[in-house]
Amino acid sequence: MSKVNRPAPAWQIDQWFNTPAALNLESLRGKVIALESFQMLCPGCVSHGLPQATRIRATFAADDVAVVGLHTVFEHHAAMTPTSLQAFLHEYRIQFPVGVDRAGIDGAPTPRTMSAYFMQGTPTLTLIDAAGVIRYQHFGQVSDMLLGAQIAELIREADTLRKSSLLEGDPVQRSQAAHCDEQGCTI
Amino acid sequence: MSKVNRPAPAWQIDQWFNTPAALNLESLRGKVIALESFQMLCPGCVSHGLPQATRIRATFAADDVAVVGLHTVFEHHAAMTPTSLQAFLHEYRIQFPVGVDRAGIDGAPTPRTMSAYFMQGTPTLTLIDAAGVIRYQHFGQVSDMLLGAQIAELIREADTLRKSSLLEGDPVQRSQAAHCDEQGCTI
Amino acid sequence: MSKVNRPAPAWQIDQWFNTPAALNLESLRGKVIALESFQMLCPGCVSHGLPQATRIRATFAADDVAVVGLHTVFEHHAAMTPTSLQAFLHEYRIQFPVGVDRAGIDGAPTPRTMSAYFMQGTPTLTLIDAAGVIRYQHFGQVSDMLLGAQIAELIREADTLRKSSLLEGDPVQRSQAAHCDEQGCTI
Amino acid sequence: MSKVNRPAPAWQIDQWFNTPAALNLESLRGKVIALESFQMLCPGCVSHGLPQATRIRATFAADDVAVVGLHTVFEHHAAMTPTSLQAFLHEYRIQFPVGVDRAGIDGAPTPRTMSAYFMQGTPTLTLIDAAGVIRYQHFGQVSDMLLGAQIAELIREADTLRKSSLLEGDPVQRSQAAHCDEQGCTI
Repeated sequence: MSKVNRPAPAWQIDQWFNTPAALNLESLRGKVIALESFQMLCPGCVSHGLPQATRIRATFAADDVAVVGLHTVFEHHAAMTPTSLQAFLHEYRIQFPVGVDRAGIDGAPTPRTMSAYFMQGTPTLTLIDAAGVIRYQHFGQVSDMLLGAQIAELIREADTLRKSSLLEGDPVQRSQAAHCDEQGCTI
Repeated sequence: MSKVNRPAPAWQIDQWFNTPAALNLESLRGKVIALESFQMLCPGCVSHGLPQATRIRATFAADDVAVVGLHTVFEHHAAMTPTSLQAFLHEYRIQFPVGVDRAGIDGAPTPRTMSAYFMQGTPTLTLIDAAGVIRYQHFGQVSDMLLGAQIAELIREADTLRKSSLLEGDPVQRSQAAHCDEQGCTI
Repeated sequence: MSKVNRPAPAWQIDQWFNTPAALNLESLRGKVIALESFQMLCPGCVSHGLPQATRIRATFAADDVAVVGLHTVFEHHAAMTPTSLQAFLHEYRIQFPVGVDRAGIDGAPTPRTMSAYFMQGTPTLTLIDAAGVIRYQHFGQVSDMLLGAQIAELIREADTLRKSSLLEGDPVQRSQAAHCDEQGCTI
Repeated sequence: MSKVNRPAPAWQIDQWFNTPAALNLESLRGKVIALESFQMLCPGCVSHGLPQATRIRATFAADDVAVVGLHTVFEHHAAMTPTSLQAFLHEYRIQFPVGVDRAGIDGAPTPRTMSAYFMQGTPTLTLIDAAGVIRYQHFGQVSDMLLGAQIAELIREADTLRKSSLLEGDPVQRSQAAHCDEQGCTI
């Protein structure tokens, strides 16, 4: 199954930080979602992934793009507890909502949301469109310029969807408008 | 007069580098143009503007975006001759076409294209849409993420124009289309 | 009491990583010591202090300079346990010995060695000369060039001490030789 | 013949910038000299060599270390004239003295001082000790930490020379004190 061009699986979260209420895909429908999956002790996440997520938040309007962190611990579980994460978020001044991915089934090291999104590791940046479809997924480093272009493309699509009132309309029609099949997504 | 949302003035060029033939706006119609105005002895151009132009060229398809340099010398004219520029382009491995802006009228220090575009200094990055309209102009530093988003927006518009066949259609209609709608660009 | 130009206080360490045996000042006498005090969740330590300590280790001969880390946790104690530190050292590939500073007396938040060295925070880099005297202490950022110069100065002094056989000689004479007054330290 | 551990050849300079009077090795005797050889259109010189020379000037006392630039043009001669260099120094805010190396004999592309120092290219940083002996020569990039250590070593030697009054004394004795022969230099 392809990682992209399919409906984003539900997030399975044990605990949220930096948000008064739990988030979910449905409540963010209509916005582009930039989902930054990281581990607090992953050097590439600290030097590259998280600062880039912060730049996304600074560049695009909150009405257009929701930046959400996902703490996907698949190694050193005892070292990256929610207690440690909370101090990390404070010290690194991460201000967007961050959810703690639920531990894997039957003690599997990879947590559940990470598995459901077929992520290879951390950092992974997933872009979910306004209709809730995974459109891009980048493992490791991706340039700011390419990312800016992809987000702008999804914002433009969201505007088109919004104008055509399809977001509030019939789910089947909405799904057709998004045109996501195995070949890709078009509107 | 506004710098943006008006037809891009013609380029007044004495000499071209990195291209077999002179370029002009008409021959690039249908593509987004990223026009990088620089001076070879401007530190911000060397450290920021020109590398960013090179990243634009590497990120977007040549069919979608044309990257063009404009050597807009407004100081130290004797130090930044075409001979010096040629060596500079060679040493810095600048591979996109670069035109030498024509000296100002009656000995004015600011060259002609730079004046016609109301540029404040160097580096200046101007984005011209597929219909030949100046849409964005950045003096100094602009982030890769924002720039990527703006270019993607203009590419998407060019696609729409192309699909509606307006580019090949009646110039008046094209001009009306290009000059945007209620939400978009007006002069 | 001055932070520098006095004998380095003994290290009070609960646990060592990256070394088969506990380290102490006496066993390193004769070498310059670069003591990097850090917290694993301190951004400046991760981006600046620890990479600089690694560069010290790569630049100078191990016979001349011993690089030693000191985990001086004075906040978020529950988040920066030895278990978390071990994973951190692994992920960031820190290869020099690191000691865990002992918790403060009577529950004081600042750990004992950190207090004894009058450190203001993290990162702090302390340079201890071959005779065991604190000679420089830098809180926050210090340039590689200045640090390289200071370490070279202390190595040169150590060579002089070694040639004059004072290191193996009478402790009183050695102490006098190493001694520092208001004008500074001379040998 | 070795590049280092031999008396520094005289500088053959056509023109000086940033100094009221011509400089020469004799007038700088007693100081460590950091000689930064560069070409104004050499990218590595602009991004690395010249900023490092500026950091040397900022880190060490002017009484201890003299930073001197040498414009060693061995290619694109028509593009890097003294007129262009002057604008370059102004725009890049280079504030230390810079001499223009004299054109090669019989039209050889490599200028004379560059040849006499056996430099491989630009940037090249040469460290000359207080007695006028070439001690280190780095082509390309060298780390700030190593460079800081080497300069500190030479400053310390200069202090020792100064204390022993040898600098003002008999040239033969001074030369002996510097102990520079084909095997190397010691004091």
